[in-house]
Amino acid sequence: MSSLGKTPFIPTADAPLYQQLYIHMRSVILHGELKGGSKLPSTRALADEFNISRNTVVNAYRQLTAEGYLESIEGSGSFVVHVLPDDLLAPSESPSSSSEQQSDVRVPTLSKYASLQLVHASTSASIARPFSSEIPALDVFPADIWSRLIVRGARQMKGNLLKYQESAGYYPLREAIAAHIAISRQVHCSPEQIVIVSGSQGALDLSARMLVNAGDPVWMEDPGYIGARGAFLGVGARPVPVPVDEEGLIVKEGIRRAEGARLAYITPSHQFPLGHTMSLSRRLELLEWAKRADAYILEDDYDSEYRYADRPLAALQGLDTAGRVIYIGTFSKVMFPSLRIGYLVLPPPLVKPFLKVRRLINIHNPLLEQVALTDFINEGHFARHLRRMRSLYAERRAILLSALQKLPLDVESPEAGLHCIGWLPRGIDEQTVVRQAAAHDLDLTPVSTFAMEPFSRQGLLLGFAGFSAHELRSGVRRLKDILQSV
Amino acid sequence: MSSLGKTPFIPTADAPLYQQLYIHMRSVILHGELKGGSKLPSTRALADEFNISRNTVVNAYRQLTAEGYLESIEGSGSFVVHVLPDDLLAPSESPSSSSEQQSDVRVPTLSKYASLQLVHASTSASIARPFSSEIPALDVFPADIWSRLIVRGARQMKGNLLKYQESAGYYPLREAIAAHIAISRQVHCSPEQIVIVSGSQGALDLSARMLVNAGDPVWMEDPGYIGARGAFLGVGARPVPVPVDEEGLIVKEGIRRAEGARLAYITPSHQFPLGHTMSLSRRLELLEWAKRADAYILEDDYDSEYRYADRPLAALQGLDTAGRVIYIGTFSKVMFPSLRIGYLVLPPPLVKPFLKVRRLINIHNPLLEQVALTDFINEGHFARHLRRMRSLYAERRAILLSALQKLPLDVESPEAGLHCIGWLPRGIDEQTVVRQAAAHDLDLTPVSTFAMEPFSRQGLLLGFAGFSAHELRSGVRRLKDILQSV
Repeated sequence: MSSLGKTPFIPTADAPLYQQLYIHMRSVILHGELKGGSKLPSTRALADEFNISRNTVVNAYRQLTAEGYLESIEGSGSFVVHVLPDDLLAPSESPSSSSEQQSDVRVPTLSKYASLQLVHASTSASIARPFSSEIPALDVFPADIWSRLIVRGARQMKGNLLKYQESAGYYPLREAIAAHIAISRQVHCSPEQIVIVSGSQGALDLSARMLVNAGDPVWMEDPGYIGARGAFLGVGARPVPVPVDEEGLIVKEGIRRAEGARLAYITPSHQFPLGHTMSLSRRLELLEWAKRADAYILEDDYDSEYRYADRPLAALQGLDTAGRVIYIGTFSKVMFPSLRIGYLVLPPPLVKPFLKVRRLINIHNPLLEQVALTDFINEGHFARHLRRMRSLYAERRAILLSALQKLPLDVESPEAGLHCIGWLPRGIDEQTVVRQAAAHDLDLTPVSTFAMEPFSRQGLLLGFAGFSAHELRSGVRRLKDILQSV
Repeated sequence: MSSLGKTPFIPTADAPLYQQLYIHMRSVILHGELKGGSKLPSTRALADEFNISRNTVVNAYRQLTAEGYLESIEGSGSFVVHVLPDDLLAPSESPSSSSEQQSDVRVPTLSKYASLQLVHASTSASIARPFSSEIPALDVFPADIWSRLIVRGARQMKGNLLKYQESAGYYPLREAIAAHIAISRQVHCSPEQIVIVSGSQGALDLSARMLVNAGDPVWMEDPGYIGARGAFLGVGARPVPVPVDEEGLIVKEGIRRAEGARLAYITPSHQFPLGHTMSLSRRLELLEWAKRADAYILEDDYDSEYRYADRPLAALQGLDTAGRVIYIGTFSKVMFPSLRIGYLVLPPPLVKPFLKVRRLINIHNPLLEQVALTDFINEGHFARHLRRMRSLYAERRAILLSALQKLPLDVESPEAGLHCIGWLPRGIDEQTVVRQAAAHDLDLTPVSTFAMEPFSRQGLLLGFAGFSAHELRSGVRRLKDILQSV
């Protein structure tokens, strides 16, 4: 038995030694031989014990720390974390299964997701803490109106409405969406091109299944949205990181890296997570490439309703004359997440093929919410709610930005979305800040979480939408103390 | 321009000539060059025109007829059908997209489903006609109670319930399901092993993604459920048809054909579509194989609530001591299809992996219906509804069986489920009957629709659950006339 547990470490000649040590240690941690909170031997002691170089141990520790298995506490050494990164995906799920998972279980397909470090969505079980970027202002959602429309919808749920419905979704809802996005986003489509799915994740999943085969390269904004990467990994595609700058995805770099990619995933109205709006010339460049490469563009227009200055650039979809753009919208943030309604706008030739496969995924979305949402849009509640939220969020954003002025952060504040970015001064480690913040009831997500390639700057997502002026100001005060202490 | 349209037929040496002609003709039909209703040249005329043997033409016509592209009318020749088999999947969808689909569109993944001839689910747009087997008695569903519970649920939809929820589903619903299936199906599980998904199709899709890789063989009951086959084809698996007899899936034959399969899909409580209950010895044989082969068994326990005689055999899941069985249940038929709630019961080690990937599909089911369904079960409405339906369906089944006695059908009537089988006398073609029946407002599905290998007998599914005594009797009268005329 070594100081790392009962499983012996037996290096082979197959891989770099530090990597073998890292894999061994990760496995020992995941199997519970090294429990959360355990202190690890010093790098020097372990190097002696295993008769390997200290550098090898340092590298393995560093990777485990970067991946969130270890935390190093200045002056005290390295410790196994209490919540493993592998647990974060399924927060507050089944304690029993967590211990049983240690047994040998054959789930070959899981290896597809090996490169994916997922962050959890704040679930109902968790209390919303600043500066979570996932939480809209649910307390001001007009729950009474919504409840009234659900009640009305529920009374209609008889006869034919209990039967299987069209896979494309409730037709009146598709009409309402088509009318809404024509005006607000200049998306040109007929209701027949719209497919209602389960949130934007449902749209990403269906698109990935339809448009890419295993091994196909797919351009991903880097840093970018993890849920999209997960959908592509799930079909065995090869995500190709393409860096972004102030004009959005650098198309030339995408072409250099993988000209023959089948698909490009982009968030042009405000890039996730950095917030930049894709410039018109980049949009045209991208469309040009897609046409030439016979590739598709997946335009995720999440949260585009929230823009605080300028007139928003129209959706890319409206510029597309070649049928290359698939547009994704969602009601998760503009309504509420547990609604689970999103949609795809498809080029006409893709509609039938998408519906065929959609049926095989889950036939269709539940009907009741679709009926209520149709009424919510058609009776003007949606537009009113958006206007109200836009001005509330603009106010909260201004409060946050003003409070942040006293902090040693380089704040990047796109005129859109529900969060801004606070870049850390050189020398301050984002992981350390995130950990300390968690102990002070702050929920921070590092930008690097979303990066596929090592990211040059360290920074934090600072969500403002779900928090009152008081919560934002007091959160900023705590963050200030933390930044001063590290 | 040939008599088949403007695209010329240019044979090559690559494939049998009849197959090339078949592919050419199918393409001409799909591209609309030969429209629905067009009469084809006689086999002799076409053989002369193309300077090929008449047998080649006969074989091509035969395959196109078998696949539903042509219909041959005795004494009049062959005609292009009006509704192409490729259209059946997406009933009543977007007429505009149907014409645009003819253009060249790259959807490589669709080829996965090439071997799948899907039947459509009757959607709200279509009128329920006897003897559709998909429609439960929706007119007697207690819509008022359900609506009341939805209203109550809707009033709770505030604050945390608007946020993202656990991917596994609403915990109180999982508790209610665990308690229900423990008693009714002897399924042993904790709520932590249950994952709420979107109907049984959602369960099949998730299981296929998790447990099989591209190329893996999967045992399928033959004839069997097409939705399951679609889910496996979607992940690139290789469905292996395994014949069934009165004792269910013939395990020895599965072992002979693909001993190393990764998964077996079965419907043991009443085999779909034939209705046999899997015998205990076969169940044990199957479990034994799964253990030995390190394979999983997917037990689809659809409609097991409806059994009209004997005590039902307990679920296979309850016999499994090795963690090989994944159990699937659905509320689509016992409640109503547009509800879209089903569930998986997983061996504990599979829970976490499944939840990870489930998040990437669509995060979680909408919450409201889960809350209402929990109340529906816990307040006794569900058990009451089941009892009422069981006796109503038993009555309708008896009416159908009695009426069918006057028909020249060999009726097979399992003591379970929502349909029976009427085997046709030799010499009567099921496709002819189905077509004629459609013209007389009857909705019949041939057994062969569900067969992967050529099936020795011709027969029809006769659903009884959704129809009144009058509708059933008058339907049988029309069916009698049709059988006498063909």
